[in-house]
Amino acid sequence: MGATEPQWVLMATGRSPTNIAVIKYWGKRDEALILPVNDSISVTLDPDHLSATTTVAASPSFPSDRMWLNGKEIALSGGRFQSCLREIRKRARDVEDEKKGIKIKKEDWEKLHVHIASYNNFPTAAGLASSAAGLACLVFTLGKLMNVNEDYGELSSIARQGSGSACRSIYGGFVKWCMGKNDDGSDSMAVQLVDESHWDDLVIIIAVVSSKQKETSSTSGMRDTVETSPLLQYRAQTVVPSRILKMEDAIKNRDFESFARLTCADSNQFHAVCLDTSPPIFYMNDTSHRIISLVEKWNHSEGTPQGCLHI
Amino acid sequence: MGATEPQWVLMATGRSPTNIAVIKYWGKRDEALILPVNDSISVTLDPDHLSATTTVAASPSFPSDRMWLNGKEIALSGGRFQSCLREIRKRARDVEDEKKGIKIKKEDWEKLHVHIASYNNFPTAAGLASSAAGLACLVFTLGKLMNVNEDYGELSSIARQGSGSACRSIYGGFVKWCMGKNDDGSDSMAVQLVDESHWDDLVIIIAVVSSKQKETSSTSGMRDTVETSPLLQYRAQTVVPSRILKMEDAIKNRDFESFARLTCADSNQFHAVCLDTSPPIFYMNDTSHRIISLVEKWNHSEGTPQGCLHI
Repeated sequence: MGATEPQWVLMATGRSPTNIAVIKYWGKRDEALILPVNDSISVTLDPDHLSATTTVAASPSFPSDRMWLNGKEIALSGGRFQSCLREIRKRARDVEDEKKGIKIKKEDWEKLHVHIASYNNFPTAAGLASSAAGLACLVFTLGKLMNVNEDYGELSSIARQGSGSACRSIYGGFVKWCMGKNDDGSDSMAVQLVDESHWDDLVIIIAVVSSKQKETSSTSGMRDTVETSPLLQYRAQTVVPSRILKMEDAIKNRDFESFARLTCADSNQFHAVCLDTSPPIFYMNDTSHRIISLVEKWNHSEGTPQGCLHI
Repeated sequence: MGATEPQWVLMATGRSPTNIAVIKYWGKRDEALILPVNDSISVTLDPDHLSATTTVAASPSFPSDRMWLNGKEIALSGGRFQSCLREIRKRARDVEDEKKGIKIKKEDWEKLHVHIASYNNFPTAAGLASSAAGLACLVFTLGKLMNVNEDYGELSSIARQGSGSACRSIYGGFVKWCMGKNDDGSDSMAVQLVDESHWDDLVIIIAVVSSKQKETSSTSGMRDTVETSPLLQYRAQTVVPSRILKMEDAIKNRDFESFARLTCADSNQFHAVCLDTSPPIFYMNDTSHRIISLVEKWNHSEGTPQGCLHI
């Protein structure tokens, strides 16, 4: 055997929480760029609770990009992963680790392959925005590894191309994803409305009614809804814009009553357009119905909302 | 005891089938007159299957109007029963039964009280249009008793005031309830599109998923939907009118593919606006969802609809 070059490995680890939409994203106007048909607003969970943890590694010894999700290798061939990798690589800068004797030039990143290992501490694809946490974490951690200097808005726009709602997981607190107008998606990105300290007595309870994977993925479900639901465009163009304004006010004023009413109404309307899809999409079961009825009865008996539901 | 007048009883019996809407009625623009927010189309079932059978009796010995439903006395005080009774009494004519020696003058009907006994041969208030069959039968049978000479359109308009979709059970075959435009409801009545012989190889299977009474009655459910669903008016004003035209064509041409697609889409959209109501209304459960999925898979695997669902 001849002499070999030193085979270093450079690593970075990050963690991103999931987010729960209170005004829902459902339906894309551009599938490839993941541009939505309406704005949406979400609350980002505490990263100690539902989150993805991702370690990315680069090494000249890696012959290809590879990824493991929850310990199982998954294909990186999908356009969405490739979009995120490409966009981050474009923005990579010089990296130097004197201790390890590593020196990577900006232009080297195009040739260096990465290994990615990501874990969710909650069920995957069960309606808990696992891809939002996962893709936000991937973009954020790759950015760290490659010394990317972009602001959070720019990172959110890259994460969006991996999984739409991932753009909202870049920030804590309450986050609005502005749908944008440009055809290239450059203005479709997340902004933080208020940070996590603004409404810190708001408690979010996650009840996992079923940890099975959804029968219809969000991606194919949205596509079917856009193609077949007569109600979706009306929702997107007429109902949501006014709800977004009201929700922004409710959040700014910590007005739980308005917040709860809007959250419930929008969650139900999201399920309504799923049902208006052909064939219909069901994301609720009898247990979800019972939980909704319970909270509705509680709210009704108290006269003001004590709880709201996003199911 | 002194002499008493002969206390005769005059009776009539009728039977009316239930009807299943293929383009749905959901939402009233006038609660008292039962005027709908959109046209609807239904198929009337064979009276040998799901039907109401009603016997009405009049006698000078009856001190008040009374009614029994499935053997249990129910209040006749409701405005809807009273509307039907009043409208039929207004149109009553002379009745003579020589054998029994009965002679009732037109004007006597105002003072004569009736007893009504009605039976459904299927679960009541479980989503099978029991009130449609019941009120159509009541109006039809009272009309027979009181020798009313009005045409079916007029009778349907009276039945409508008892229970909206009852107006459609006056006819067999496929029936359209024209919502009408007049404030007094005089043009809101049913018309027969085609009779029961037109498409006699169409088979309707009724699967009773639960025979329990619905948690939300149609009356209060519709009221809540009209008041709270942002999607309902769009459905009524924009989606339904074009579906009505397509459904009329599908029925005329016995085009099962179009008929099935429209029926499924409209049934799902009805459930969608129920879900878009605050608090949401659920008329489906996990069993209904499984039946839908089964039929959707069957249709998909055959390439053309083999079945359609109205749940």
